[in-house]
Amino acid sequence: MQQRSEADIPDFADIALARARIDSRIRLTPVLLDSGLNRELGCSVYCKCENLQRTGAFKFRGASNAISRLREMGITGDVATHSSGNHGAALALAARLDKRHAHVVMPQNSVPMKIESVRRYGGIIHFCAPTQEAREEELAKLVADGKIPIPPYDHADIIAGQGTAALELIQEVPSLEQIITPVGGGGLISGTAIAVKDTGQQVFGVEPEGAADTVASLAQGERVKSWTPDTIADGLRAIIGKRNFSVIRREVAQVFTVSDEDIRRAMSLFWQELRLIIEPSSATVIAAIRNHPEVFSGKKVGVIISGGNVDPGDWKAFTTFD
Amino acid sequence: MQQRSEADIPDFADIALARARIDSRIRLTPVLLDSGLNRELGCSVYCKCENLQRTGAFKFRGASNAISRLREMGITGDVATHSSGNHGAALALAARLDKRHAHVVMPQNSVPMKIESVRRYGGIIHFCAPTQEAREEELAKLVADGKIPIPPYDHADIIAGQGTAALELIQEVPSLEQIITPVGGGGLISGTAIAVKDTGQQVFGVEPEGAADTVASLAQGERVKSWTPDTIADGLRAIIGKRNFSVIRREVAQVFTVSDEDIRRAMSLFWQELRLIIEPSSATVIAAIRNHPEVFSGKKVGVIISGGNVDPGDWKAFTTFD
Repeated sequence: MQQRSEADIPDFADIALARARIDSRIRLTPVLLDSGLNRELGCSVYCKCENLQRTGAFKFRGASNAISRLREMGITGDVATHSSGNHGAALALAARLDKRHAHVVMPQNSVPMKIESVRRYGGIIHFCAPTQEAREEELAKLVADGKIPIPPYDHADIIAGQGTAALELIQEVPSLEQIITPVGGGGLISGTAIAVKDTGQQVFGVEPEGAADTVASLAQGERVKSWTPDTIADGLRAIIGKRNFSVIRREVAQVFTVSDEDIRRAMSLFWQELRLIIEPSSATVIAAIRNHPEVFSGKKVGVIISGGNVDPGDWKAFTTFD
Repeated sequence: MQQRSEADIPDFADIALARARIDSRIRLTPVLLDSGLNRELGCSVYCKCENLQRTGAFKFRGASNAISRLREMGITGDVATHSSGNHGAALALAARLDKRHAHVVMPQNSVPMKIESVRRYGGIIHFCAPTQEAREEELAKLVADGKIPIPPYDHADIIAGQGTAALELIQEVPSLEQIITPVGGGGLISGTAIAVKDTGQQVFGVEPEGAADTVASLAQGERVKSWTPDTIADGLRAIIGKRNFSVIRREVAQVFTVSDEDIRRAMSLFWQELRLIIEPSSATVIAAIRNHPEVFSGKKVGVIISGGNVDPGDWKAFTTFD
């Protein structure tokens, strides 16, 4: 994917193109509105259910777009990435649908269900120590061996693909005033911010307190390069990407933090009202809306429910309170 | 509800009217199609996700229709029913939205989550012994006390309301060839059969082996009146209703049975492919399609995923195999 420069950041047209490109592969996920949830949160919450996307997360959008671009450019061969789970599973399926193999570097401590999922979609797993350095080192070996690297978030085609979820959401609910997404590596929020720039929705992000590197980066005016994450939101433990941070600085109104306790209560609430179990990362947006009535009260708020890949047994343990 | 005679069975127009009547109250549930599920089942499966209906089950359709009819007829006052859970929760919410109270007779051994749900929607619970006789006796007391009985399935307005799920499904996917629903008391399948009669889809039902009173009734040519159910599908333990049986005899191509083991595997498959946890009753339809390739192979099959009210901890226990 060396065809795009390091500084390359997609614009609205890239997202619209991505949408057309991946349309036949992805699922047009439902947008759910629930009066009980609205009452509880004090605003109208439009939930774009990417937990019901193929592979159980929005990540399939970016991976599909990146793989389709390779095909368009005539680049053949296997792909490789590092991922704690959702991007890995998404890339595995996107590659398989394009008759390639995907090599996925995964930390040994990844959630077992996510490991199983990567395997099920045909991904070839390479385990590594649970550090950013070990991930990158292992991936570098695969790339040296000729595999095409598909980064999980800091890449124009990935960002454009992830932005298609917000594009669908504002097309279905044009009257939205705000939109909020979780922030891990920043692929989803940067794609979202670019997708809604012209239609003018305010964009917010959320990080777990234990992985608040983006909030720290915004505070110090430059990207924090190292952070030891400590949160149940396993999908949000990555450090914010370069392109992603640059979009967030320009386009995002505010990034909130929520505690793991907030996340657990939000997962519980979402189940109670909507009968959907969502992974901890997804629940951050519900928690942030609940914590900030001064921002969201009375508004029409779009939320991207990012994924549903949590073992129901773990979900039960997370949401059991004393 | 004595305004309709005992023999009263709704027709297509009643279902279309019900749809218009309850439209603003119910959620237009999504229809999901998944390539992994299709591959596994050998046909194209269109899942009408009533697990995402308000109160987590299709039952809210019938309850809303019955309550709206009371209002149209100028009948005021509180309502009463007996239910192991989903109809009770549905009636509680439908009554509350119409500023009434719902009294719900529940067997002591009802699933705790369903008891909690009835309570959360404002239902007033009356516990009874876990027999059909005890339920009816307790309900009779409430009716003697002036409450308006709203039966869970053997009632024209309930049947018409439940039929609206299939109506929405065939409107969204007109090319469906077959449609399959679970069979408990028979409200859903009879409403479904009436809804699709003119469009010609073949209609199938499924019962758990441990609650196969409808299959037994069809075999002996008259309604079995007593059956001691033994199945994990707690929503399908009721005996088939009179009106419901009469519709099934006339309109339903076949009623299959599936084992609890089949149900557990189907719940597991549905989660694996769609990241939705569904209650055992709902999984019966997936199990039946899997067991009967001679009927479903290569077809476009509509399924009503009837409900999602299962505790994730119980779900985990149900789907854990040695």
